[in-house]
Amino acid sequence: MILEFAEIDVKAGHEADFESAVAQALPLFHAARGCGGVQLQRGIEQPNRYTLIVRWATLEDHTVGFRGSEAFTRWRALVSPHFETPPRVQHARPVLGGDRPRGR
Amino acid sequence: MILEFAEIDVKAGHEADFESAVAQALPLFHAARGCGGVQLQRGIEQPNRYTLIVRWATLEDHTVGFRGSEAFTRWRALVSPHFETPPRVQHARPVLGGDRPRGR
Repeated sequence: MILEFAEIDVKAGHEADFESAVAQALPLFHAARGCGGVQLQRGIEQPNRYTLIVRWATLEDHTVGFRGSEAFTRWRALVSPHFETPPRVQHARPVLGGDRPRGR
Repeated sequence: MILEFAEIDVKAGHEADFESAVAQALPLFHAARGCGGVQLQRGIEQPNRYTLIVRWATLEDHTVGFRGSEAFTRWRALVSPHFETPPRVQHARPVLGGDRPRGR
């Protein structure tokens, strides 16, 4: 399992519309091969900065499978009108950690 | 619940030592008030770039409680010798999403 981190700065005043567009697009991710889940985080220090975190079974499930699919075109059509700048995308692998142990 | 994202670039060749130091420091987080869990992610495109993701009950549990504690001093003593640059810290709130629905 790997994670996609996409940092997205949204145009001023577009925050609610962007959030609605992501909500509308969730089924595109849930139907994609290798996608384990999607979370959208909104910045506290910079409230027009969002981080989309997507879990993929493999890097290629994102970079080849999803990006090469019709679903990606539909995803971008929904959200890109709200982008202030192009998303900054990085991928990472979990190294360690997890939930706080129970009973603490 | 909020998330802390700390992006940390580690000195070349220090990756294994940094990961060991974070593993050693996990109990400091698990004992901290409001900490719900810690994950360490290692970059794929830039393998000396790590993202530490910490769940906190409130922003102040991190910025006031943890940063003002002895545990923070011990955490920094363990990991800072491996920092290439100062960590870039942001906080965010979950807006939407989660695991992929079961049965897909």
